[in-house]
Amino acid sequence: MAQVKLLVSRRQRATPYTSRVEALGVSGFSVVNHTILPKGFARSVEDDYWHLKNHVQLWDVGCQRQVQLRGPDAARLAQLMTPRDLRRAEVGQCLYAPMIDAEAGMLNDPVILKLADDRYWFSIADADMLLWANGLATGMGLEVGVDEPDVWPLAVQGPKSDELMARVFGDAVRTIGFFRFSRLELNGREIVVARSGFSRQGGFELYVDGFDFGGEVWDALWQAGDGLDLSPGCPNLIERIEAGLLSYGNDMTRANNPLECGLEGYCQLDDSVEYIGMAALHRIAEKGPRRLIRGLVFDGEACPACQHPWPLRSGAEEAGYVTSAIWSPRFGANVALAMLERDYQDAGTGVEVRCGDGSQRAGIVYNLPMEGA
Amino acid sequence: MAQVKLLVSRRQRATPYTSRVEALGVSGFSVVNHTILPKGFARSVEDDYWHLKNHVQLWDVGCQRQVQLRGPDAARLAQLMTPRDLRRAEVGQCLYAPMIDAEAGMLNDPVILKLADDRYWFSIADADMLLWANGLATGMGLEVGVDEPDVWPLAVQGPKSDELMARVFGDAVRTIGFFRFSRLELNGREIVVARSGFSRQGGFELYVDGFDFGGEVWDALWQAGDGLDLSPGCPNLIERIEAGLLSYGNDMTRANNPLECGLEGYCQLDDSVEYIGMAALHRIAEKGPRRLIRGLVFDGEACPACQHPWPLRSGAEEAGYVTSAIWSPRFGANVALAMLERDYQDAGTGVEVRCGDGSQRAGIVYNLPMEGA
Repeated sequence: MAQVKLLVSRRQRATPYTSRVEALGVSGFSVVNHTILPKGFARSVEDDYWHLKNHVQLWDVGCQRQVQLRGPDAARLAQLMTPRDLRRAEVGQCLYAPMIDAEAGMLNDPVILKLADDRYWFSIADADMLLWANGLATGMGLEVGVDEPDVWPLAVQGPKSDELMARVFGDAVRTIGFFRFSRLELNGREIVVARSGFSRQGGFELYVDGFDFGGEVWDALWQAGDGLDLSPGCPNLIERIEAGLLSYGNDMTRANNPLECGLEGYCQLDDSVEYIGMAALHRIAEKGPRRLIRGLVFDGEACPACQHPWPLRSGAEEAGYVTSAIWSPRFGANVALAMLERDYQDAGTGVEVRCGDGSQRAGIVYNLPMEGA
Repeated sequence: MAQVKLLVSRRQRATPYTSRVEALGVSGFSVVNHTILPKGFARSVEDDYWHLKNHVQLWDVGCQRQVQLRGPDAARLAQLMTPRDLRRAEVGQCLYAPMIDAEAGMLNDPVILKLADDRYWFSIADADMLLWANGLATGMGLEVGVDEPDVWPLAVQGPKSDELMARVFGDAVRTIGFFRFSRLELNGREIVVARSGFSRQGGFELYVDGFDFGGEVWDALWQAGDGLDLSPGCPNLIERIEAGLLSYGNDMTRANNPLECGLEGYCQLDDSVEYIGMAALHRIAEKGPRRLIRGLVFDGEACPACQHPWPLRSGAEEAGYVTSAIWSPRFGANVALAMLERDYQDAGTGVEVRCGDGSQRAGIVYNLPMEGA
């Protein structure tokens, strides 16, 4: 606990939910966007995996900071920052969107919320995208305000999410479509509620507006959990690997382009939309990306944590590298996300994994999401 | 130790020195620039304070990442990003420099190293200034490369620093001027060595080029410490508060301008240099900043850690807020950095501190650095 407290300062921010997760026995924190993110609770990662797949959890994801664009050039700047075609985006829509630089290097993979024709939130992974957006706006002389609103996301994840949310917000939540949001009310205050989240088990993200309001929202949900086996939680590494959910900074960096990250479906590759990095991305698309993120299953006992990329080989050849890995109770083997060279991308291909502990394991390439995830 | 290990991933990077500080009993880490920074070792912060003032310490400050500007427009972009006049900057010089946005809000306070007329390193505090620099360069169409080189700073701090460094690099280190750097050699590899660091006890920062080279440099210094009472260390909160060394994200944010941060001496306030935020900074300078960072000494027992700004009052009036605070054995009282409103900035002014634990303390304003620091 002393170490947990040591982490918190004005620079390394607590969230409105920190006191709640501490009371519930959080075992440690990671730091994302200068904000602390719970890393686990009393139960093991494996037990937490089964719980997330069967019940419902409340996650403190206040670290998902919003970069707000507002003003006459907000839509233009939003489009400049992503290869995803935003022309037909509707107010009320959430859009998963790669963000790239002029060389098509991945800078982030936020969910964009279109709040109005001249107002967007980019709900970001770990990097100061406010500085990128502000640098572009300043450099180009755009008429757009760029700031971080006092908004603190809270996630409800798992198959019983609809039931829990309906108890607090009424049955209106059941009609929210996937990657759509509605404005719902609690105690007279409005909350943007989206059907989204960093798992594939279903659920919602609540964009709680006002640090002072967070505790109240947490408590309302927590107190509504009778009979649902509600527990606190956080992104589960086993679940996210099997689901093929990428973590920026871990599974991809500025050295990767969105095509090798498997994000081609979110990239407009003709000339109809103009964005930063378009020319570079077109060049990559013409040749086809050399590498591709894929799933991987490998044998042996539970692997150590992947603290830096682990090399993959096929005989004397370099086949790629692992970026995230953990033991999966469902596969009875280790599961991983891996960046694979062109000859090794087909499901069923065999490669050798060199783990961080020096052990050599036999691995097999899988499609993402991994079967049944 | 489990928690220490939990923190490290590809996203939350280890440094070349992490294995060394772990072997020496590091008690925990903070995260700066997506990289771990040791927070303490076996001895107390107070004992560490006296040690730093009397002996010599080796600090893993690999988290001080470099933003490298290189190319025909490198000098132009460097000047656009700071109100400090860089026109007479010389190759071999280190320049402490505020970085501000178009509204003159503080974005960072790096040390800039001028490596060549077309090559600069910005040795940054905790924010992704690479994204700001790259956003400006992209938005303005500048001809400049912006990247993060594989450079891992290591600091030698304390009054016996010259002696330790001379044993490894020869007497040439003794002639390096304050905020100047030289290129010295170890085992056939060159290192940029600057007389600088995040304390006022004297010392050097070594910009070790190559992750693979870091362990060798650490070991060479560690093995040369006989009779010098050499120990591992890290920035000491008591020492830095008394010295008036500001921590970006703690003592200042984008909501502050450089004048209220006491950085007027690093700001060119006439029209002779053009930089982003110039018009806004001129307007603030004309009126005079409303607030100012000052030292503060306050009574009572050792205060808790300052995890969010603590309000200062004078009767019914708001007098400002505390941003960093800790017990000082030298003052026999708590010392703090505080942002003070205009009527409360003079040394000797009395204010009331409301600590995070709810206690009320009587405080007195001090000049920075605090006497004898």
